[in-house]
Amino acid sequence: MTSPQFAVAPVDRSLEAALRRKIDTKTKPLGALGRLEDLALQVGLVRGSLAPTLANPHIVVFAGDHGAAKAGISAFPQDVTWQMVENFLAGGAAINVFARANGIGLTVVDAGVAHDFGARPNLVDAKVAPGTANYLEGPAMTAAQRDAAMAKGADIVRKLAAEGCEVIGFGEMGIGNTAAASLITHCLTGATLEDCVGRGTGLDDAGLARKRELLGQALSAWPERPPISRLPLPEGEDGRGSPSDSRKSEDGVLAILARYGGFEVAMMAGAMLAAAQARMMVLVDGFICGAAALVAARLQPAFLDYAVFCHASAEPGNRAQLASFGAKPLVDLGLRLGEGTGAALAWPLLRAAGAFLNEMASFESAGVSEGSA
Amino acid sequence: MTSPQFAVAPVDRSLEAALRRKIDTKTKPLGALGRLEDLALQVGLVRGSLAPTLANPHIVVFAGDHGAAKAGISAFPQDVTWQMVENFLAGGAAINVFARANGIGLTVVDAGVAHDFGARPNLVDAKVAPGTANYLEGPAMTAAQRDAAMAKGADIVRKLAAEGCEVIGFGEMGIGNTAAASLITHCLTGATLEDCVGRGTGLDDAGLARKRELLGQALSAWPERPPISRLPLPEGEDGRGSPSDSRKSEDGVLAILARYGGFEVAMMAGAMLAAAQARMMVLVDGFICGAAALVAARLQPAFLDYAVFCHASAEPGNRAQLASFGAKPLVDLGLRLGEGTGAALAWPLLRAAGAFLNEMASFESAGVSEGSA
Repeated sequence: MTSPQFAVAPVDRSLEAALRRKIDTKTKPLGALGRLEDLALQVGLVRGSLAPTLANPHIVVFAGDHGAAKAGISAFPQDVTWQMVENFLAGGAAINVFARANGIGLTVVDAGVAHDFGARPNLVDAKVAPGTANYLEGPAMTAAQRDAAMAKGADIVRKLAAEGCEVIGFGEMGIGNTAAASLITHCLTGATLEDCVGRGTGLDDAGLARKRELLGQALSAWPERPPISRLPLPEGEDGRGSPSDSRKSEDGVLAILARYGGFEVAMMAGAMLAAAQARMMVLVDGFICGAAALVAARLQPAFLDYAVFCHASAEPGNRAQLASFGAKPLVDLGLRLGEGTGAALAWPLLRAAGAFLNEMASFESAGVSEGSA
Repeated sequence: MTSPQFAVAPVDRSLEAALRRKIDTKTKPLGALGRLEDLALQVGLVRGSLAPTLANPHIVVFAGDHGAAKAGISAFPQDVTWQMVENFLAGGAAINVFARANGIGLTVVDAGVAHDFGARPNLVDAKVAPGTANYLEGPAMTAAQRDAAMAKGADIVRKLAAEGCEVIGFGEMGIGNTAAASLITHCLTGATLEDCVGRGTGLDDAGLARKRELLGQALSAWPERPPISRLPLPEGEDGRGSPSDSRKSEDGVLAILARYGGFEVAMMAGAMLAAAQARMMVLVDGFICGAAALVAARLQPAFLDYAVFCHASAEPGNRAQLASFGAKPLVDLGLRLGEGTGAALAWPLLRAAGAFLNEMASFESAGVSEGSA
């Protein structure tokens, strides 16, 4: 079993019928708000209230470097990781713009960047190490580093929860992290490696071929990796696998996380689980966050009760992740930027769902005649 | 030719190359913001600026009644039109909630409701008549009524433009107006009537069959209607038809609008054209607004330069409209409520597109290395 510090309880469904009734008596044709009605129900269940709040929305961006980045798996040099962290701190990146536009707080975390930032007032120093090791040669991180990363991610979220944050999104920055996410997605969904590997920040055809080749080598270099057959998708109506399989499945998930990294992915997985524990709504961004969500959901299937899949990434491996979750994302805008930008852009939809549940009149209160069909 | 008061000029594309360059040098992989990059380009072209503003977003909801509603084409009684107007005025409808949540001003207009509201401070009285006539028996409105409706819609928008509104969405309320929109969509796109007719506010199978039958009768009752072949889709790379066809095509469009109505659709069409004239970005909601947009685009193809198609309605005829425009809507959430709710929900995406164009750092300004691919 995962450490008890990460145990996630399913939502209490005792309010479900009352929530559905409240949604259905709003002044609109039955079902006319489509997926916003599903979201409103989820918000009510997660927050355990017929009048749920979603106060202090926040996005945490985790940055980390990857030992494998020097092997040529990205169109950008590794220095871009720390340079983009500086851009976050200066307020000039896309996530800064979208968070400001949509009223979302932003925290930037050094999860393991290969750069010395010194003490910076707006940067959370949670550096596990200055970049992971190269998974072409061995594990990206030790078990102790992985556990430290997950614990640090959880701590950051618990602090935000104590400050009143009720809805949280996560983002990331790390040159090479689509490669890590591809490996994790392949290992945890069973989708072919080819279906899990894309152009990342913009590889050309030759670069994509080289990335695929290197990631194939990364799989070969770990012959004892847990076979995918030992990591089935959770089955059964409630999405939970059988208890007898869960121990070795969880060990396998944690081993895969340590092998391929990175620190930002491990920290995000711990943060996601802590957010669900704190009964936050969790905004899941695109492909890298999806890899962290795969880890979180395999360790604690109830995590999915709290998760909102925000957007369909243009990075192809995201499709395998969404299929594995059985999730249809809220928007499909061809984004492939990361940083949590898809989560920031989708937040107003979730906010609107909460608002209609709380603020719309009912047929009775507004004196509107009901339909006959 | 349409009256010169509705002439819409195409956007000036002289800034296009500079806008693309500005978008491409932002600190993100090339193209990584997907459709938001297309939106940012459109905003820059419409507003004619490399640093475009989108000030004072506003939604105007037009309400009107339909003579055909008494024939049994809706799951709700006609009184719901005025009851929902009261709900709008009291702030309890979905559009009120979403406009408040997303910082959008709201104007409610009586375009032709079959109800005496008296003088009301928050209701714009633009009533053409207390409901249209029944198109099963004759034209829904006279040519003079149609022209008055279009002019009143334009006047409302011009007043908002004078007050500083730079982005506008439209919504509607009118029991029976999915039926009118179905007829207009069939006549202006050539899609089969069956593909254009849906359940509206929630008809059951028998109700849907009856609606289809009645709308078939509405077509038969006007044997001299302009054949669809006289109303081709605009052709050619720039979306403009040949000048020699435009006069009779425009006459046909205006005749179809008068025949099937309603006042809220005609008023919205005039409002849309005035908004494009004022160089506003125009947020097009779902199916009913799509019918008004068909009218606007057939009269003035350049209208499409200013239009953003906000969402894919669950009402099936919206697909024929979107195909006719060659448009992919921003979100697909299964909405079928009208009122402008899809426009209100999509506005934060457009705002984000404008914000990234204005606020994001460039590689050069942020000191971030560029990619090699």
